[in-house]
Amino acid sequence: MEFWFSELHSPHVKFDIRVEKQLFSGKSDYQRIDVFESPEFGKFLTLNGSVIFSEQDCFIYNEMVVHVPMAVHPDVKNVLIIGGGDGGVSKELLQYDNIENIDIVEQDSMFVDVCKEYFPETSIGLDDERVHIYNYDALRFLRSKMNEYDLIINDATDPFGASEGLFTREFYGSCYKALKDDGILVYQHGSPFYDEDEDACRSMHKKVFHTFPISRVYQAHIPTSPSGYWLFGFASKKYHPLKDFKADEWKKRDIYTEYYTTNLHTGAFMLPKYVEELLEQEEK
Amino acid sequence: MEFWFSELHSPHVKFDIRVEKQLFSGKSDYQRIDVFESPEFGKFLTLNGSVIFSEQDCFIYNEMVVHVPMAVHPDVKNVLIIGGGDGGVSKELLQYDNIENIDIVEQDSMFVDVCKEYFPETSIGLDDERVHIYNYDALRFLRSKMNEYDLIINDATDPFGASEGLFTREFYGSCYKALKDDGILVYQHGSPFYDEDEDACRSMHKKVFHTFPISRVYQAHIPTSPSGYWLFGFASKKYHPLKDFKADEWKKRDIYTEYYTTNLHTGAFMLPKYVEELLEQEEK
Repeated sequence: MEFWFSELHSPHVKFDIRVEKQLFSGKSDYQRIDVFESPEFGKFLTLNGSVIFSEQDCFIYNEMVVHVPMAVHPDVKNVLIIGGGDGGVSKELLQYDNIENIDIVEQDSMFVDVCKEYFPETSIGLDDERVHIYNYDALRFLRSKMNEYDLIINDATDPFGASEGLFTREFYGSCYKALKDDGILVYQHGSPFYDEDEDACRSMHKKVFHTFPISRVYQAHIPTSPSGYWLFGFASKKYHPLKDFKADEWKKRDIYTEYYTTNLHTGAFMLPKYVEELLEQEEK
Repeated sequence: MEFWFSELHSPHVKFDIRVEKQLFSGKSDYQRIDVFESPEFGKFLTLNGSVIFSEQDCFIYNEMVVHVPMAVHPDVKNVLIIGGGDGGVSKELLQYDNIENIDIVEQDSMFVDVCKEYFPETSIGLDDERVHIYNYDALRFLRSKMNEYDLIINDATDPFGASEGLFTREFYGSCYKALKDDGILVYQHGSPFYDEDEDACRSMHKKVFHTFPISRVYQAHIPTSPSGYWLFGFASKKYHPLKDFKADEWKKRDIYTEYYTTNLHTGAFMLPKYVEELLEQEEK
């Protein structure tokens, strides 16, 4: 049987994953959720038809949003993850003993339940006593927070649809306010290659660049992302991702990774010229 | 009308490009050649059903095989390109005034003709008086060459099929012999993510690592490559790609690029941990 999941990575490019079976399909108050089993990517989850993570490549994303800021900030104790109901990011964070508290704001409780059932190895990251899940709207949750977090990770991917509010100037302002004086915000910056994505990428950089004193973009190769190329934003009140990078101290922590190395950390900020130029145009 | 070109990037992953029309289809003595017009990638050429280059992303490949060695070797005068009948690599090389001669060994003359007809902006790189095209078998051509080239670029992509002979230990040995005492070989190292590609990638590294004193691998993001991720090999008799990297001198040459920067040069050698480990396993 030929059985394929297809996703349009642009209106003119499709990415298809051969599927063995569909394990789950449901509709929450916020979105359609599906889980598939595939020979190449293992199990993978989609929201409204877009791949959110797969067993085979989620390590790249989870490591890149966690270890990059953790190797820069000298003492992260209190973390907020916006989205992140699958537990992948918190699982990665829990490797660090100095982290005392992780708040996860995940509006969609069905998403959390589905992850717990189909991705128990990932959602184990939700079970630790340091982790607290809030089924709130992230924007509302943030409004009451001031000077509280060392690190905020915005796990929301989609500048359209359910999480649209997480890509506004108000949102970045609320993150700024919720961070301590030396806090760092890491967020998904999208894929810069296809024209449609480029616009979202530009607009995001413009907003963050004018909100935070330090705003840098870094990259990773993620096969299930549009064109296989994904950017992350590093917005910071005090620490620079390269000038304040503590490679030797990070190595001493003996953290397990499969993608991140301190060498790769530096390389991830060395962007192609067309991406550099695109970002610089929004910095005026 | 829905009209799609599809390529299997692994037995279980497909990449589809929406097509406006098929511009050419023919069979040479060596392979099937097709040219398509597409809204996302512009015109693109396939050999035996695999995308070889597209107007929209070929700059990445061409720049990465040319500028990385050119910013390391202090005085490249004589270059050999194996494959390269489209002219993209030689066009990039022709920006350097110190290059006196470029030999292109392209067995398939129909491939050259098709490129000249459908990609004149690229194949302009074949018209310069410094460029000489030989419709020979590359292995045979190489056997008579000794201590001749400063730089060899192996543009052949496929370790199976028509260019299989360009991935043998004999081939790398012939390249070594054809290079001067400070010569550099740059070659396509494939994509390391999917299991099928990983084996070819390992085997290639093993052969080159045991043939050349210096053997390093670098990376780029190429949307039409399997999983969007492509590796290049840098094999060298004398110059190290980072220790002998002459960034300031390269900048003074005022070469036009859209992907390569001297910053990216360094970052391209900073590989993900899973790729580092895969290569190290073949270095024993």
